[in-house]
Amino acid sequence: MAKRMLSEAEGYDLLREYGVPTPGFEIVTSADAAAKAASAIGFPVVMKIISPQIVHKSDAGGVVVGISGAAEAKKAFTQIVESAKEYDAEAEIKGVIIEEMAKPGLELILGGKTDPAFGKVITFGMGGTLVELMKDVTLRILPVSEEEIRTMVREINAYPLISGYRGMKPKDEETLVEIIAGVAKFFDENPQVTEFDINPMRLYESGACAVDARVIVDDDYQPAERKERTFVPPEYFTPRSVAVIGASSDPQKMGYAVLHNLLHFPGQIYPVNNKRTEVQGLKAYPTVTAVPNPVDLAVITVPAVHVPRVMQECGEKKIPLVVVITAGFKEAGEEGKVLEERMLDIARHYNIRIVGPNCLGLIIPPRGLDTTYVHESPEPGSIAFISQSGAIINTVVDWSLKQEIGFSAVFSVGNQADLDFLDYLRFVEQDKSTRAIILYIEQLTNGKEFMEVVSEVAKKKPVVAIKSGSSQKGQKAASSHTGSLSGSYEVYMEAFREAGVIPVRALRGAFEVAELCASPGGYPRGRRAIVITNAGGFAVLSSDYAEMYGLDLIDLPPEILEELNEFLPDYWSHANPLDLLGDASEKRFQQVFDVLARHSDLWDMAFVVGFPNLVLDSEHLADQIIRFSGKTENLVVASLLGGECMDAGKKVLKGHQIPDFDDLEQTFKVVGRVVWQRCRAKSIGLP
Amino acid sequence: MAKRMLSEAEGYDLLREYGVPTPGFEIVTSADAAAKAASAIGFPVVMKIISPQIVHKSDAGGVVVGISGAAEAKKAFTQIVESAKEYDAEAEIKGVIIEEMAKPGLELILGGKTDPAFGKVITFGMGGTLVELMKDVTLRILPVSEEEIRTMVREINAYPLISGYRGMKPKDEETLVEIIAGVAKFFDENPQVTEFDINPMRLYESGACAVDARVIVDDDYQPAERKERTFVPPEYFTPRSVAVIGASSDPQKMGYAVLHNLLHFPGQIYPVNNKRTEVQGLKAYPTVTAVPNPVDLAVITVPAVHVPRVMQECGEKKIPLVVVITAGFKEAGEEGKVLEERMLDIARHYNIRIVGPNCLGLIIPPRGLDTTYVHESPEPGSIAFISQSGAIINTVVDWSLKQEIGFSAVFSVGNQADLDFLDYLRFVEQDKSTRAIILYIEQLTNGKEFMEVVSEVAKKKPVVAIKSGSSQKGQKAASSHTGSLSGSYEVYMEAFREAGVIPVRALRGAFEVAELCASPGGYPRGRRAIVITNAGGFAVLSSDYAEMYGLDLIDLPPEILEELNEFLPDYWSHANPLDLLGDASEKRFQQVFDVLARHSDLWDMAFVVGFPNLVLDSEHLADQIIRFSGKTENLVVASLLGGECMDAGKKVLKGHQIPDFDDLEQTFKVVGRVVWQRCRAKSIGLP
Repeated sequence: MAKRMLSEAEGYDLLREYGVPTPGFEIVTSADAAAKAASAIGFPVVMKIISPQIVHKSDAGGVVVGISGAAEAKKAFTQIVESAKEYDAEAEIKGVIIEEMAKPGLELILGGKTDPAFGKVITFGMGGTLVELMKDVTLRILPVSEEEIRTMVREINAYPLISGYRGMKPKDEETLVEIIAGVAKFFDENPQVTEFDINPMRLYESGACAVDARVIVDDDYQPAERKERTFVPPEYFTPRSVAVIGASSDPQKMGYAVLHNLLHFPGQIYPVNNKRTEVQGLKAYPTVTAVPNPVDLAVITVPAVHVPRVMQECGEKKIPLVVVITAGFKEAGEEGKVLEERMLDIARHYNIRIVGPNCLGLIIPPRGLDTTYVHESPEPGSIAFISQSGAIINTVVDWSLKQEIGFSAVFSVGNQADLDFLDYLRFVEQDKSTRAIILYIEQLTNGKEFMEVVSEVAKKKPVVAIKSGSSQKGQKAASSHTGSLSGSYEVYMEAFREAGVIPVRALRGAFEVAELCASPGGYPRGRRAIVITNAGGFAVLSSDYAEMYGLDLIDLPPEILEELNEFLPDYWSHANPLDLLGDASEKRFQQVFDVLARHSDLWDMAFVVGFPNLVLDSEHLADQIIRFSGKTENLVVASLLGGECMDAGKKVLKGHQIPDFDDLEQTFKVVGRVVWQRCRAKSIGLP
Repeated sequence: MAKRMLSEAEGYDLLREYGVPTPGFEIVTSADAAAKAASAIGFPVVMKIISPQIVHKSDAGGVVVGISGAAEAKKAFTQIVESAKEYDAEAEIKGVIIEEMAKPGLELILGGKTDPAFGKVITFGMGGTLVELMKDVTLRILPVSEEEIRTMVREINAYPLISGYRGMKPKDEETLVEIIAGVAKFFDENPQVTEFDINPMRLYESGACAVDARVIVDDDYQPAERKERTFVPPEYFTPRSVAVIGASSDPQKMGYAVLHNLLHFPGQIYPVNNKRTEVQGLKAYPTVTAVPNPVDLAVITVPAVHVPRVMQECGEKKIPLVVVITAGFKEAGEEGKVLEERMLDIARHYNIRIVGPNCLGLIIPPRGLDTTYVHESPEPGSIAFISQSGAIINTVVDWSLKQEIGFSAVFSVGNQADLDFLDYLRFVEQDKSTRAIILYIEQLTNGKEFMEVVSEVAKKKPVVAIKSGSSQKGQKAASSHTGSLSGSYEVYMEAFREAGVIPVRALRGAFEVAELCASPGGYPRGRRAIVITNAGGFAVLSSDYAEMYGLDLIDLPPEILEELNEFLPDYWSHANPLDLLGDASEKRFQQVFDVLARHSDLWDMAFVVGFPNLVLDSEHLADQIIRFSGKTENLVVASLLGGECMDAGKKVLKGHQIPDFDDLEQTFKVVGRVVWQRCRAKSIGLP
């Protein structure tokens, strides 16, 4: 029995060592002993069944509260044992615990679980019967600082019940913080404890008491070991010569498309095909060892069974980096797994580093290098895209061509048998063409290490991530009881938040966020927003969207209002959003921008929402927006709404890297995502 | 004193008449009387201050609970009175109410408020101190049926606390339904009661008890009267001749742009200008009365002060419909209001109907009629757009040209001095070109009448609405205490839901929803969804988005799985989403579609998510999607992702009115909106 639940008494004993207050208790195995123990503890008492098989004691009728006399205790013992037997005839009943009945208090929950990617996680929230209905829970990945614990306590929606609300006296927040710290230490220092919950933890005006504790121990649990890692030198990804092993002239084959996409590569290309001497107009070699010159990179497209042999040849040829596009390895079952291990052993022996297998390969557009079979190679640009789905790369690249978005690098990680997300992150971190990084993640195995690396990268360049698999349905299978309160997806979100990664839900949004972060204003420092528009309707919608996405439309101080009143017409909105009215000219915008730029300390971001009309030319408005952005360190975002008549202005803004959006809701959503990352507003959920 | 709060005793008396159980009580004005009364009622009792000025009694220290003896009651009296005086020295203290202390129970809230647009509204949700933190509240506009009340009870998140949860016995749901029905009747039959709340209403396993009641009476309250209404005949909007009063040759003037946009009108155009004999190449008349032929429609652009005179002339000319573009009326203060009334009096006298004032006018593209000053007239099409913001019309029309979206009609409602939303709705309801209707609403004054009309219209054609002004900040000023639980925006959402209107948050979304609803599958009947794709990555994201937007990815029954297994390759997902793998050909899609079409009773909508690759041509996939849609009554939605290589397929789908989206998240969001309307899932909020 590797995984087992501690009895409540064992749990209490363990928690007490870490300063968690628990009720006095005694365990009894007869009705008479129950009466005696209850009297010794002092009435009222609560009595609960002890059985490793019965996890939810209430459901089993195994809990009786408010017992106020010896006779009652006796009766309760019998009742509890009978109910438990009825509930589960197989359950082993170890006795009944008699506990001091903690006085009523604010019911909270403290829990812990072990996430497959990020390890130990603690959760905190509203407890009692409401807990699962309200889902007012927050979490942190261990280790956690005292400051973070204080933030946890404050970020649940029900925090006012702790701090004092409607004439209620405040609860003992200091003790709560100490208890959470103790619980975190307990969880950290007991590696075999993989899961626990204290529900409820009752909090009082002074002190607290853990009223129930469920602790799961897994004696076989081994924390994930870190693999030894040497990051590849950046020049590995900028080869001068590339061999395609399995190159083909048959358009139906993968080896055709890969070689086809490489035809524009400015370095040497060596097709390898053991049946032909020429492939797609290039001289072909029977094996890679037959290539007369050095090969910096090999791309393998031959069937999986042949890959180990080919890898051996790559080793003999001293090729430092091999892209294995072929599928049919670990992802395809036991046989594939063996094949993958064999391939890896050979690679290790020769010091070869591997991209994939089961991947699309890599594209470095500024170098003209494309080892994938995408429909058409993407344009060079400043965004690096690292994806765990090949289909998504295919689609995004195709879409990027239409949108005129360019890439500095595209990596398809595949099975990550050798190189993984972290290697590619380290490459794009130092790559001069890369201004922003987008990740598409399905699952991480090395969450902690990922957080360490990505938080360093995110300090230099914005990192945006889509994590798929948020659906409860998808997560249900994996999650335990406590887990259902904070599924694995929420742990990823917390990891992203801690590491400075900006999470998004959709691919399009990922590119918009990346572009915004790479713009002159960079990240906004806070959530204080100003909206300037020439349309009342959009002013109202802007207020709606700002609130939806967690931005704070500040109240303008009287001195600014006075300054603006001096030159604005009487009917202007006199408030934020600043509605400059439909007849607002370029000049009016300019004057307003000047005032706002002078007071840049009062706000963090300005949205300029322009709509087309006869008195305002989009180009002139764009010029003023650029001038405005130049006069302030704050983020200036444009939303030039409408059709063709805004195109000229949009082009001007694009030329100056001023973020500009066609859709008003999207404007606020994108900025809201970035602010979410910076300002850690738990209240603003992600969707 | 028009608006006043009833004392708790008065409130209890009133509620009892409607079958609401309340505690026994007595009102006392001295400490000795308190002791006596408390003994008579029976301990424990609760005592509360009675003061019209003190609304939140707890905040004022005006509540003492659990008094268990005469001496304690005496002390409590003194304490309550002193605390209240300290809290508000000005408050008039009418005494202290001594109440039977209701036993603890599930704390709920029942409330009512009077919405400026929709009249009386009842709210129901979790009560007690948690109520404002959790916002677990639902509402209905009166009148409300018993069935609706049952739905209300079930749609709060905390409903399991009523129905029985984790071994807790169920509460008395029948009594709760009766009480809500009684409260609704009470609110309906007492017009002067404008607001109330019972918080908490304690619900027991058997029975219930209102523990506190706050009832606000406004003796001056008058429910909004309905104006008498004659809908204009549809032919009013299809004039054969149009006069532009204030027509100009100066491009800076409104009268220039309006006439300019009318130059393509195939009927007669008569510029009216008292200084020129020719305007923009057309013969001009000094007054409209000087036009020799009948005029069906006049557009007025002259300054506000001249409008009454011009209206008089329109009357003399017997013009049935006048569009007043000019601003400076009711929206501009007292003077403008007087002017508007004067204009209306004249119009009424001559039986003239008015569009506006302070509007952009109307556009009927299939008739070549455009009375507005938009930048460029929109194309004819099948969407009617009725907007309370002129700027939004300007932007949307401009945007529509780029998107190749056409309109059957565009109405700018302006001040709605005469014709309003309902008139335009009635026109587009019967208009043959119109297939879907989009509303942009800032505020309604006649909410009830709006619901009646729009629910009839929505039965014939989909109606999509954007309601701006959702932000708490914007609503705060108007909302009372109870109001803050369910702002006016939530009342609009409920009205939309009842009336069959689909609410959306953004303009772009409005058009996508409208297009979807007008497609062959029409509205889906339910939320059962199937996803068919050739990409694993998009399968995972589809699951995420389906859940985010309230769609239910059904489990495929074994017999369907078996049918599919017969021809699908081993590695297909064997689940919904159906991942047909990257090498899926047209044929594979076709076979799967055939199986699904045969089992159309099992699902309500199918999403076909295609990504570009070498084995699947977008046109062929599109052909199969069309064939699939033809074989089922259910909704079939495509999401062909990627760039140019999908364009051919997209064009084919567009030609067959199959909804198709470029962005996967947006696909699910749009369908989710429509399902939200149909399936009334409260749990899926709007944003």
